[in-house]
Amino acid sequence: MRYARIRDPAGTVRRGTYDDGTVTAGGETYDTDADDVDLLAPCEPTKIVCVGRNYADHAEELGNEVPDRPLLFLKPPNAVADPNSTVTLPGGKERVDHEAEIAFVIGEQARNVAAADAMDYVAGFTCLDDVSNRDDQNEEQNWVRGKAFDGAAPIGPCIADPEHVPEDAAVELRVNGETKQSSSRDYFMFSIPELVEEITTYMTLEPGDVVATGTPAGVGPLADGDRVEVEVEGVGVLEHDVNQE
Amino acid sequence: MRYARIRDPAGTVRRGTYDDGTVTAGGETYDTDADDVDLLAPCEPTKIVCVGRNYADHAEELGNEVPDRPLLFLKPPNAVADPNSTVTLPGGKERVDHEAEIAFVIGEQARNVAAADAMDYVAGFTCLDDVSNRDDQNEEQNWVRGKAFDGAAPIGPCIADPEHVPEDAAVELRVNGETKQSSSRDYFMFSIPELVEEITTYMTLEPGDVVATGTPAGVGPLADGDRVEVEVEGVGVLEHDVNQE
Repeated sequence: MRYARIRDPAGTVRRGTYDDGTVTAGGETYDTDADDVDLLAPCEPTKIVCVGRNYADHAEELGNEVPDRPLLFLKPPNAVADPNSTVTLPGGKERVDHEAEIAFVIGEQARNVAAADAMDYVAGFTCLDDVSNRDDQNEEQNWVRGKAFDGAAPIGPCIADPEHVPEDAAVELRVNGETKQSSSRDYFMFSIPELVEEITTYMTLEPGDVVATGTPAGVGPLADGDRVEVEVEGVGVLEHDVNQE
Repeated sequence: MRYARIRDPAGTVRRGTYDDGTVTAGGETYDTDADDVDLLAPCEPTKIVCVGRNYADHAEELGNEVPDRPLLFLKPPNAVADPNSTVTLPGGKERVDHEAEIAFVIGEQARNVAAADAMDYVAGFTCLDDVSNRDDQNEEQNWVRGKAFDGAAPIGPCIADPEHVPEDAAVELRVNGETKQSSSRDYFMFSIPELVEEITTYMTLEPGDVVATGTPAGVGPLADGDRVEVEVEGVGVLEHDVNQE
């Protein structure tokens, strides 16, 4: 199954099953393209734990060494943006980049979870754009201005059960229809079970929390008016627009 | 006024006025030392935005240059610990330190707030211990294992209205009764209004969110069985215990 959240024409937030652009909830089927239905981020994370440099090719692109354990950083709830929303880039920056990511959503509270048990705590997969303000990221110890600004994490369009998402699921990002990033889970340096074990050694992951698994090669700048699509095989396509003031 | 949150003998969470170890809520007055009353963290932040190196003396202690803008990092909700709780330090680490901090709590949603208006968005002040796992902090780009582990942010005991907290409010930290850190707001490099303006340039602060203003000189290691007190003038004393497995 795939699940999505919408605001229905009456303004009520509903969670239902997602299929080919429709959401079925409470016995009604809603077309997510309708003017009076808003597709929302598929979960409400208390935190997003992000992984950096988890594809060998992207680490090389940025001139970084391959790490011996995952590089972690955080995006708080203010970073979440709904599918089809317009992300306003931080003002006065030279370069703000897209980063296509396969993300997974926690289903059960997880702490000190061994890798062998990790998938019991994963509700499913979604698409995420780790929008990154390089001007500040390159100057900061902690990537707060760089990665935690409002709207820095569009998520969606749905959560797909793990069985929908192959072990070698493709991830692709397009800007205005042109493919910029294209890779697959095959190239992860740290697997999802390894990430769950490492993160939950230190902190509790709550239901709805999101882990973003890193981005492959091909990151590049965003500009005013761009339309971004992040597609993860088995999940679907997350779309968002870009506004630069 | 000062405000605190408790879990009452019936298990209900209540917010009331705090005075000398008692909380008055719903017409009842509760003794927070009673066995059947639990003092809780005074707010439920969606994020804690922390400031590093905001006292010139502490920056020198760590051998860091004084920054030209605040160093920011994040603690997610899993880091929050209640007053009088026992913080379990991450396992197998050589050094986990206390860091006494004056923290402030947001009262109204804040975004793009000018320094001149900042205090309109501040509900009040509290005490925070920025418990810091140096083993990992010293090796990480982003201080996630170092600063965002479960229990890394004891907060409390109350939120004191700004008028209770002098402009030069003292902050002190004691371990097992011995004073380890002692300073005051006089030594801030970035003022609270400047911090609000800088943070809200990038992100929305929600009601209940906490900003921790940095720690003065005197940080030092914690050990199993330690009792920590953080006192901020006008707020009161936050106490917590330490467990090292």
